[in-house]
Amino acid sequence: MSKKIVIVGGVAGGATAAARLRRIDETSKIVLFEKGEYMSFANCGLPYYIGEKIKDRQKLLVQTVEGMSKKFNLDIRNLSEVIGINRETKTVQVKDLKTGNAYEESYDDLVLSPGARPIVPPIQGLNEAKAIFTLRNIPDTDKIKSYVDNEKPKRAVVVGGGFIGLEMAENLHERGIDVTVIEMANQVMAPLDYEMASIIHTHLEEKGVNLVLSDGVESFESEGKIVVTNNGKRMETDLIILSIGVRPENELAINAGLQVGERGGIQVNDYLQTNDPNIYAIGDAIEVKDYINGKPTMIPLAWPANRQGRLVADNIYGKKAKYNGTLGTSIAKVLDYTVATTGNNEKTLKRLGIPYEVIHLHPSSHAGYYPGAAPIALKLVFDKETGKIYGAQAVGKDGVDKRIDVIATAIKGGLSVVDLADLELAYAPPYSSAKDPVNMLGYAATNIVEGVIETVQWHEIDEIVANGATLVDVRTPIELEMGFIEGAINIPIDDIRERLTELPKNEKIYVNCQVGLRGYLATRILQENGFKVKNLDGGWKTYSSVHS
Amino acid sequence: MSKKIVIVGGVAGGATAAARLRRIDETSKIVLFEKGEYMSFANCGLPYYIGEKIKDRQKLLVQTVEGMSKKFNLDIRNLSEVIGINRETKTVQVKDLKTGNAYEESYDDLVLSPGARPIVPPIQGLNEAKAIFTLRNIPDTDKIKSYVDNEKPKRAVVVGGGFIGLEMAENLHERGIDVTVIEMANQVMAPLDYEMASIIHTHLEEKGVNLVLSDGVESFESEGKIVVTNNGKRMETDLIILSIGVRPENELAINAGLQVGERGGIQVNDYLQTNDPNIYAIGDAIEVKDYINGKPTMIPLAWPANRQGRLVADNIYGKKAKYNGTLGTSIAKVLDYTVATTGNNEKTLKRLGIPYEVIHLHPSSHAGYYPGAAPIALKLVFDKETGKIYGAQAVGKDGVDKRIDVIATAIKGGLSVVDLADLELAYAPPYSSAKDPVNMLGYAATNIVEGVIETVQWHEIDEIVANGATLVDVRTPIELEMGFIEGAINIPIDDIRERLTELPKNEKIYVNCQVGLRGYLATRILQENGFKVKNLDGGWKTYSSVHS
Ligand SMILES: Cc1cc2nc3c(=O)[nH]c(=O)nc-3n(C[C@H](O)[C@H](O)[C@H](O)COP(=O)(O)OP(=O)(O)OC[C@H]3O[C@@H](n4cnc5c(N)ncnc54)[C@H](O)[C@@H]3O)c2cc1C
Ligand SMILES: Cc1cc2nc3c(=O)[nH]c(=O)nc-3n(C[C@H](O)[C@H](O)[C@H](O)COP(=O)(O)OP(=O)(O)OC[C@H]3O[C@@H](n4cnc5c(N)ncnc54)[C@H](O)[C@@H]3O)c2cc1C
Ligand SMILES: CC(C)(COP(=O)(O)OP(=O)(O)OC[C@H]1O[C@@H](n2cnc3c(N)ncnc32)[C@H](O)[C@@H]1OP(=O)(O)O)[C@@H](O)C(=O)NCCC(=O)NCCS
Ligand SMILES: CC(C)(COP(=O)(O)OP(=O)(O)OC[C@H]1O[C@@H](n2cnc3c(N)ncnc32)[C@H](O)[C@@H]1OP(=O)(O)O)[C@@H](O)C(=O)NCCC(=O)NCCS
Repeated sequence: MSKKIVIVGGVAGGATAAARLRRIDETSKIVLFEKGEYMSFANCGLPYYIGEKIKDRQKLLVQTVEGMSKKFNLDIRNLSEVIGINRETKTVQVKDLKTGNAYEESYDDLVLSPGARPIVPPIQGLNEAKAIFTLRNIPDTDKIKSYVDNEKPKRAVVVGGGFIGLEMAENLHERGIDVTVIEMANQVMAPLDYEMASIIHTHLEEKGVNLVLSDGVESFESEGKIVVTNNGKRMETDLIILSIGVRPENELAINAGLQVGERGGIQVNDYLQTNDPNIYAIGDAIEVKDYINGKPTMIPLAWPANRQGRLVADNIYGKKAKYNGTLGTSIAKVLDYTVATTGNNEKTLKRLGIPYEVIHLHPSSHAGYYPGAAPIALKLVFDKETGKIYGAQAVGKDGVDKRIDVIATAIKGGLSVVDLADLELAYAPPYSSAKDPVNMLGYAATNIVEGVIETVQWHEIDEIVANGATLVDVRTPIELEMGFIEGAINIPIDDIRERLTELPKNEKIYVNCQVGLRGYLATRILQENGFKVKNLDGGWKTYSSVHS
Repeated sequence: MSKKIVIVGGVAGGATAAARLRRIDETSKIVLFEKGEYMSFANCGLPYYIGEKIKDRQKLLVQTVEGMSKKFNLDIRNLSEVIGINRETKTVQVKDLKTGNAYEESYDDLVLSPGARPIVPPIQGLNEAKAIFTLRNIPDTDKIKSYVDNEKPKRAVVVGGGFIGLEMAENLHERGIDVTVIEMANQVMAPLDYEMASIIHTHLEEKGVNLVLSDGVESFESEGKIVVTNNGKRMETDLIILSIGVRPENELAINAGLQVGERGGIQVNDYLQTNDPNIYAIGDAIEVKDYINGKPTMIPLAWPANRQGRLVADNIYGKKAKYNGTLGTSIAKVLDYTVATTGNNEKTLKRLGIPYEVIHLHPSSHAGYYPGAAPIALKLVFDKETGKIYGAQAVGKDGVDKRIDVIATAIKGGLSVVDLADLELAYAPPYSSAKDPVNMLGYAATNIVEGVIETVQWHEIDEIVANGATLVDVRTPIELEMGFIEGAINIPIDDIRERLTELPKNEKIYVNCQVGLRGYLATRILQENGFKVKNLDGGWKTYSSVHS
C-alpha cells in the first residue's frame, strides 16, 4: 500500500492526519510542511497563556517536531512554506524559510490543512498603529504577552466580539487591563440569538468590560493610541486586538485551480477530496456542509479539523470514510459564564426561510436545594410539525457544556424534541434534577408540537399589549415589585381559578410568570375553562434580559 | 373526560402524576393518599442534610400539602394509609393515621406509587440495638440528624456499600465521624464492574473511610455498640446505618391479586397498567424492562419514577404513552469522586451470557494544559460484531456526569460505538479536548470492531505472562520505576522500530503502556512489521487500580 503523502500545515488537521496515516501504514513516506516554527500547538490555549491562567508556555506545545518525527516516523519540515502546487507533475514547491531556498517535493496524495488567518481590514491608520495585534499562533502569543508583561498597558480595545475576541477580553481583563470590546453587530457571539447574547452583554458590563455594540472602527489615530468608531466615539488605548474573524488560507488552492466556495473555502466532496482526486483539504480552510440545513458554510473550529484529519487519512488508504457535515457545536468561557451552542439558531433559519419554533427555559443546573446550583438560560429551536431539533443555545454558570453536548448527541442520533423528554440522564442532587433541564426542554417542546400550548415571544408581547390585549402576570405581588411588563394585570396563579370572571372570554389572553412554568399552568387552567390563551415563552426572565 | 383518580404515594411518582393529571384535565377529581406527614420531599437530598451540606431543612420540602393542593386543585390527604384495594367495587380502604379511623374511597382509575422501603434483615441483636437507623424519608432523617447533633457519635458503621450507603458514609465522614462501610460483595457500587469500583475503594481508604469488603454483619452485641461480622471482625460503634438495599412496597398489590415479578416488583405493561386495567403502578414499586437486554429488572431511581408519573397521567387520559424501559443511568458523589454508569455492565452481560467487548480509557476531563483537568476512568461495554453500545462506566473528579449523559443519549439515539467518534461535542480548553473523551471511546472501540487491534484485559495478563508470553512495556524507564507488570520487558515506544529484532515473530506478543495509547501505537507498528500483538487495554493504570 505504500504511498508518498505530503501534508501542508502541521497543527490540528495536518498533524492528526499525519499520525493516523502512520498508524494505518508503516511504509508510507509522509512529509509534513509547516511554515511556522512550531507544529501541533494548542491554538485554543493561547488566550489563557496571555491571561496567565496557563502558566507554563511549554504546555502549549502538544507535540514537538522532534518528538512527533520520532514517534510517528515522519519527515516534518518546519519553517517550510509550500508556495505552489503543480497538479500535472504532482509536486509542490516549497520555500525553506531558514535559507530562502525553494525546492520541489513530489506526492502521490496531497493534504491541505493550512487553516485560516485573522482578517485584517484596511482601516485607516492601521499600518501606523504600534500596539496592534492579531492572535493565531505561538509567535503572535509571545508578542502580545511580552507587550503586556513589559509595557503594562492600562487600556485595551478588542475589535470583534466573537469567541476569540471575548476570550482575549477576559484574559486581558484578568491581567488588570481596562478592556473595551467593539462589535459591529448588535450583539456579541454570533452563534447566539440576540436575547441570549444579551445575558452576556449584561455580564460584561457588570464585570467592568466596556461594550460598544452596533459600531465599528473607522480609524486609528496617533499611532494607534486613539480608536475612532463609525459612530464617532473616540477611545484612548494602549493595546488593540483585532479579532473580527478569519479567512481561509486558500491562495495555494486557488492558484492550483482548485474550486473554492463563495466565502473562499476550499470545496471538497463528502470524502474531503477537492476537484483534484489526489488533493484533499481539511480544517479551517474548507467549506463544509451545515449538518442541519445542508447548505455550504465555514466553521473554523478544532473538532472538525481533528475529525477531518482522521477521516482524510482513512480515505487516502481507500476506506471511503464520509464526513457528515458540521453541526457547529461551540463553547466559550466568558468570565463567570459559559456560552455554548449547537446546530442552527433563529437568525440562520430566518435567513434560509425555514419555519421554526423556539422555547426558552431557565432551569437550575442541578437540584436547587443542593449548594452551587445556578440557572441556565436554555433555548431550543425546532420544527413544530416534525419535532426535528434545529439547534440549541445555553448561557449559564454551571452545567452548560453538558446540556449542549447532550442535545448535540441527540441531533446526531436523529432524535426529536419529543425524545428529549425520554433521555435517561444521570441524576443525583449535585449534578442534575430528576427531570434534567434537557428533559424539561423535551416536555415543554412536546407540548408545543402536540398543540397543547401556544406561546408568544419576548419580542412580540409589547406590541400586543399596546394594541389592547389582556396580559395576566401570574406571579406573586412581591415578585412584580422587581419589575413587570407594562400593562400587565396581576392575578397570582393560586388565585386564578377563583378570578376567572375578571377575564375576557372572547379574545386571546396572554399570560406570563417568572420563567414560563406557572404561565404554562395558568394557560392550561384557562384553556380548560374555555379561554383562548398564549403563554409568554421564557417568562419575565427572558423578556427582561433584553429589556433591562 | 372527567374522572375520579386515586393516587397512593405522594412523592416522586405520585406527586408528578397528580400534577400532570391536573394539567391535562381541570375537572378530574384527584385524591392523593400519603401515609407520611410529608409529600413531595427531596429523598435524594436527605443524606446531604444530615451532612449539613444542605443547611435548611425547609429546602427538602419541594412542595407542601397546602401549596400543592391549592396550585393543582388536588384533594391531598397525608397521614392517610391505603390499606386495601377492592377491585370489584373499585374502592380503596384508607386508614386515617391521625384518628385511627378507616374509610373507603372510590376510584375510576387507581395509581400506585408506594415506593420501596429499606431492607431490614433479621440480624441477631438488631431489635436490641439502640442507635440503628435506615433512611427513606423526613422522619428518618430527623432521627439520624438529631442523634448526630445531640449524641455526637465518634464512630459509625454503614452496612451496605450501595449509593445510599456511600452517600451516608460521606456525609457522616463530613460530620467528623470515623466511618466503616461493610459490604457483602467484593466491591461497592454494584452498577460498576470490579476494576472501576477499585478506584473508589482506594479513595475511601485514602480519605480515612474504612472499608470491609466480602463480609457481612453476623450480629449486633451490647445494644448495638458492637458489630460482629461473618468473618469474625468485631467493631465498636456509636451509630449504625442499614443501607443494604430496598424492597418494593407490594403488599397492597399482592393482596389485591395484582401480579408481581420474581423480586417482588409490581408487573405492568408498556403503558404502566397492572393486570387490572384500571390500576396503574409506577416508581420504585414496579418491575421494569431493562432497556438494553429486555429482561425484567428493578431500578429504584428518581428519573424513572418522575418519567412514569408523567406517562401514567397521559395514559389515564387515553394517550397510549409507552414507557420504553429503564437504562439504569445513575450517578453518585463519593467524596472527591463522581461515579456514574449507564446501561449494562460486564457482570450483567456475563450473567445473561451475552458476548461483549470492553475498553478502558483514562482521558483528561478537559485540555491537560488548562488548569483543573483530571483524569476520568472510562469504560465502554459493547458488541464487537454490531458496535451496539451496551453500557458505560465512569469514575473521576471532573466531567464524569457529562460523558455518561452523552453516552446515555447516544444509546437512546440508537448510535453505535462507531458513531461516538462522530459526535460533535463542544470544545474549548476549560471543557473538553478537540477529541472529547467520548469521541476517543468511539475511536478506540471502532478499532476493535474493525479488527484493527486486539486487546488483553487487566485480569488476563498475569496468567499469560506467567505462561511465558512476552510482554513489552513501551513506557519510558522512569515511568517503570513507579511500578510495572511482573515479567515485562521495557522497550520505549520511540525505540521500538529499531529494536524489532529483540522480539519473537512466531508467537503472540503483548504490549502495555500507561493508559493504552502508546500501547496501541506500538501494536500498530509491530503488526505492520508482521508481529502478532495484543495491547493491554487501559494500560498500567487500569491494571494497577486493581493490583495495588
Ligand atoms: C486563539 C484561538 C483560539 C481558539 N480556540 C478554539 C476553541 O476554544 N475551540 C475550537 O474548537 N477552536 C478554537 N480555535 C480554532 C482552532 O484552533 C482551529 O479551528 C484549528 O486549529 C484548525 O485546524 P487547521 O489544521 O485547519 O489549521 P491550523 O491549526 O491553523 O493549522 C494550519 C497550519 O498550517 C500552516 N500553513 C498554512 N499555510 C501553509 C503553507 N503554505 N505551507 C506550510 N504551512 C502552512 C500554518 O502555519 C498553520 O500552522 C481557536 C483558534 C485560535 C487562533
Ligand atoms: C436517601 C435516598 C437518596 C436517594 N438518592 C437518589 C439519587 O441521588 N438519585 C436517584 O435517582 N434516586 C435517588 N433515590 C431514590 C428515589 O428517591 C426514588 O427512586 C423515588 O423517590 C421513587 O419514587 P416513588 O414515587 O416510587 O416512591 P417514593 O418517592 O418513595 O414515594 C412513595 C410514597 O408512598 C407512600 N406510601 C407507601 N405506601 C403507602 C400506602 N399504602 N398508603 C399511602 N402512602 C403510601 C410512602 O410513604 C412514600 O412517601 C434516593 C432515595 C433515598 C431514600
Ligand atoms: C497531537 C496530535 C498530533 C494527536 O493526533 P492523534 O494521534 O490523532 O490523536 P491522539 O493522540 O489523541 O490519539 C488518538 C488515537 O489514539 C487512539 N487511542 C487513544 N487513547 C487510546 C487508548 N487508551 N487505548 C487505545 N487507543 C487509544 C485512538 O483510537 C486514536 O487512534 P486512531 O485515530 O488510529 O483510531 C494532534 O491532535 C494535534 O496536533 N493536536 C494539537 C493541535 C490542535 O488540535 N489544536 C486545536 C485544539 S487546541
Ligand atoms: C414537585 C413535583 C410535584 C413537580 O411535578 P411536575 O409539576 O410534573 O414537575 P415540574 O414542576 O418540574 O414541571 C414540569 C412541567 O412543567 C412544564 N414546564 C417546565 N418549565 C416550563 C417552562 N419554563 N415553560 C413552560 N412549561 C414548563 C413541563 O413541560 C412539565 O409539564 P407537562 O408535564 O405538562 O409537560 C414532583 O416532581 C415532586 O414531587 N418532586 C419531589 C419528589 C422527587 O421527585 N423526589 C426524587 C428526587 S429528589
